[in-house]
Amino acid sequence: MADTQPPNQPPTDIQPEEDDKGPSKSALKKAAKAAEKAAKAAEKAAKAEQAAQAKAEAEVDFSVDFYGPLPLNQSQSRPRRPRDDLTTLSSRIGETVLLRVRVQTSRAQAKMVFLNLRQKTDTVQAVLIASAGKVSKQMIKWTADLADESIVLVEGTAEKTSEPIKRASISDVEVHISKIHLISGLDTRLPFSVEDANRPDTEADTSEVQYNRVLLETRLNNRVVDLRTQTNQAVFKLQGAIGDLFREYLSSHGFLEIHSPKLQGAATESGASVFKVSYFKGAAFLAQSPQLAKQMAIAADFERVYEIGPVFRAEDSNTHRHLTEFIGLDLEMAIEEHYHEVMETLDGMLKAIFAGLRDKYKKEIQVIQKQFPAEDFKWREGPEGTLRLTFKEAVEILVEDGVPREDLDDFSTENEKRLGRLIKAKYDTDYYIIDKFPMALRPFYTMPDPEDPTLSNSYDFFMRGEEILSGAQRIHDPNLLCEKMKSKGVDPESMKPYVDAFRMACPPHGGGGIGLERVLMLFLKLNNIRRASLFPRDPKRLEP
Amino acid sequence: MADTQPPNQPPTDIQPEEDDKGPSKSALKKAAKAAEKAAKAAEKAAKAEQAAQAKAEAEVDFSVDFYGPLPLNQSQSRPRRPRDDLTTLSSRIGETVLLRVRVQTSRAQAKMVFLNLRQKTDTVQAVLIASAGKVSKQMIKWTADLADESIVLVEGTAEKTSEPIKRASISDVEVHISKIHLISGLDTRLPFSVEDANRPDTEADTSEVQYNRVLLETRLNNRVVDLRTQTNQAVFKLQGAIGDLFREYLSSHGFLEIHSPKLQGAATESGASVFKVSYFKGAAFLAQSPQLAKQMAIAADFERVYEIGPVFRAEDSNTHRHLTEFIGLDLEMAIEEHYHEVMETLDGMLKAIFAGLRDKYKKEIQVIQKQFPAEDFKWREGPEGTLRLTFKEAVEILVEDGVPREDLDDFSTENEKRLGRLIKAKYDTDYYIIDKFPMALRPFYTMPDPEDPTLSNSYDFFMRGEEILSGAQRIHDPNLLCEKMKSKGVDPESMKPYVDAFRMACPPHGGGGIGLERVLMLFLKLNNIRRASLFPRDPKRLEP
Repeated sequence: MADTQPPNQPPTDIQPEEDDKGPSKSALKKAAKAAEKAAKAAEKAAKAEQAAQAKAEAEVDFSVDFYGPLPLNQSQSRPRRPRDDLTTLSSRIGETVLLRVRVQTSRAQAKMVFLNLRQKTDTVQAVLIASAGKVSKQMIKWTADLADESIVLVEGTAEKTSEPIKRASISDVEVHISKIHLISGLDTRLPFSVEDANRPDTEADTSEVQYNRVLLETRLNNRVVDLRTQTNQAVFKLQGAIGDLFREYLSSHGFLEIHSPKLQGAATESGASVFKVSYFKGAAFLAQSPQLAKQMAIAADFERVYEIGPVFRAEDSNTHRHLTEFIGLDLEMAIEEHYHEVMETLDGMLKAIFAGLRDKYKKEIQVIQKQFPAEDFKWREGPEGTLRLTFKEAVEILVEDGVPREDLDDFSTENEKRLGRLIKAKYDTDYYIIDKFPMALRPFYTMPDPEDPTLSNSYDFFMRGEEILSGAQRIHDPNLLCEKMKSKGVDPESMKPYVDAFRMACPPHGGGGIGLERVLMLFLKLNNIRRASLFPRDPKRLEP
Repeated sequence: MADTQPPNQPPTDIQPEEDDKGPSKSALKKAAKAAEKAAKAAEKAAKAEQAAQAKAEAEVDFSVDFYGPLPLNQSQSRPRRPRDDLTTLSSRIGETVLLRVRVQTSRAQAKMVFLNLRQKTDTVQAVLIASAGKVSKQMIKWTADLADESIVLVEGTAEKTSEPIKRASISDVEVHISKIHLISGLDTRLPFSVEDANRPDTEADTSEVQYNRVLLETRLNNRVVDLRTQTNQAVFKLQGAIGDLFREYLSSHGFLEIHSPKLQGAATESGASVFKVSYFKGAAFLAQSPQLAKQMAIAADFERVYEIGPVFRAEDSNTHRHLTEFIGLDLEMAIEEHYHEVMETLDGMLKAIFAGLRDKYKKEIQVIQKQFPAEDFKWREGPEGTLRLTFKEAVEILVEDGVPREDLDDFSTENEKRLGRLIKAKYDTDYYIIDKFPMALRPFYTMPDPEDPTLSNSYDFFMRGEEILSGAQRIHDPNLLCEKMKSKGVDPESMKPYVDAFRMACPPHGGGGIGLERVLMLFLKLNNIRRASLFPRDPKRLEP
């Protein structure tokens, strides 16, 4: 049909004339003139036809009300038409639906446009087909020209597809568009496509098609676009879920949520890695953890407390697992007899998180594993309980594997990972506890072992060979506390309000602190902690 | 009885001799010698008697195993004997119970000691009665000498009382102590007694008995002891509850919890009130709110997000309602048609919080009202919905009441409170919304009204005449945003990552931010926001 032919294509029915005999000059002149005239006439006719056609087309754009940009939403009106969620489409076959969606990609084909529409972790195919009185070619063209990532309001019918649509997460439904309007368009070029950003690195490396690999640095510089991938939508749903599961477990075990101040009067715990803040005419420091406050909450009789909040570390560590600001999941509790009461509470809580993620977030985990393929996280759920080793036993495992004993006064990151591999091979678990760390490796507030003063009542928890939690029984006796502070070079006077809390009687207690992003990264094997933080902060990054 | 007589009291049977006739010198000498001898003999006899008595007593302290200090708990053993909660005692009459408790007060009386034992918001009376073979007088003495606030492990039987015990919150049970051991004692004098700290100010002022009034400053300087009052135990239980109710409502309405960074690369929103942080070789700034991050989360397709986290304000405001660090309950959501969708979500959420507190925390509210008497917080629950006024309507109410119109370009704290009283009188509600604030009063990111550009799509929520929430539809169009930034003196280049988020298409959206401590303070009428913060921070306070 005429309207499918590109307008700039040269006419095909005009061919140069060929003749064996040379024509006369006047004949040539005449012919030239005639040709000129004919050309002019043809041009004129073409122009007239074009104009007529344009006019006709303008007249017949019967779709003007069905597409185009909406005015800027300033809450001009409120017709109260409910919008639909992509996840409900499969149950609404044959019905009219109204969707606010992103255009992930669009593809024009003859008198049709195929759109891949996205909401969070879901995509659906939509199609707009030219149709007399309903969908004009102007509407087709406008829709085909929509920039990727435009936000549109689409009205259409949900239709069952004859065969599964592989490109979309909702494969059994297609939306047949009757109206499409632009809610918010693009004002700049995309730094990368969301489709490219959602691909596994392995696919960019190995596929026959040349895909654009989006580097982590590029992603983080353009985090708002990067976060739109189905993978990231799922990752941060799981981040929220970890917080929910943490709270749910602790609430049901008698814990109270507290909020402790991040601004502190003194640089505490370990002076070196604290950020300094200008505070009116003086200075303050950002809390490295809620350690002091949560212990004071125990001295204040709250019995069992937890906190979810930012912790700040002024460490110039540029590794895959360090951030300068991260979310601490902290708890502290009074104990009746033994610090293993705390260790077991922490263990029960973490297992509840693991099981909760696995059981309630199957879909999200599948979405993430498409981009970050990984073996499912393994932990012991049976009656034998979580694997617990003492620090000494862990040292023996590494020594047996050939690590020189003199390298094992503390565990390097490398040896931690090696231990993780050895434990996985021997015990088939990605999750375990190491108990009874040497006192020399722990902070001043750690309770020494009752029999061997070189050991302490402290533990670390590990996932896939990386530490995610550190905790201990704390010293609740002010005199022993002061003694230990001095032996670690801390002046008790510099932390007077903290020490005083124990002078007015405090129950025996213990606790632990978890890095939220580490749990998320290691459960999903995201390989870099920045992927587990919404807007990560490291020594070199303060934006976006 | 002899053993009740204080040991240092002088003997009462020795009286000076009186005689009318003077005795001879030798007789005097003789008498003096005899007296001396007698005195020595008496002294000797007394000493012998004391020694015999002490020996006898030492021999008969049949209670040595039933009282005394425990060794420092370093997790030496784990007999796994469960401890009991005071709240369960009423259902355990006649049974043996094991309690870890604070000694709030003790009172010795003849051969008995009465203790007031405390756990969080509960107290119970316990009594130790001398009894042959069971409770020695040494045990009585040791127990009577226990310092207030000592932490003890008590074993005894729960006995029904013949009449209600007024001094204890659990009035129908008394614990008859058989064993009492000290878990953690005091190493210093208490700054004030927890009983004094738990009294209403009115009682200290009006009671016939001279009570010690504990000033707020003294409380805050010794916050760990102050927090132990039944009132504060209840206040912070409610603080936790507000967070729970906030999350519960929002989770069930499709919101995701996010965590945004508090360290920011640029001083944003309003440069004046931002804390500066030394960040390695450069500088960072503490976020005044998660405003920018939560809007970017909307541009990143998270649709509906909330955050509970610290916000920092470098304002030198020393008032009853300002803190330099407080907990923000923030949310942001995409809207389909109108910003009232957000306003109604915020309203529904707050009403769910109010109802949740009232219905689930009756006991805690009663405990608090004993110290802070207040009318119950009132809000409209019926179908008529929450009272909504426009800014203009609110101005009219104040003008009618005699406030000069020219004072009402903005509301002073005083006029806000006056408005609250007028509204309470007229509409019988402590809770209402003021909508349609003048654009001039709102930040650059506020969406202007579609018809009157001097107005904006923004609202504040009030409790008892004080603002607790501020929110608005935001500008999602990058060009309008830049224009408004410039008109408010903000350079769009200084906030490039934020502005860029809108260049890649962002849905229309709005949100709001709530001060957790303000909601808590105003619901309970605590009169000072510091009482609603665990360890409050203001321009003059960074400790404890």
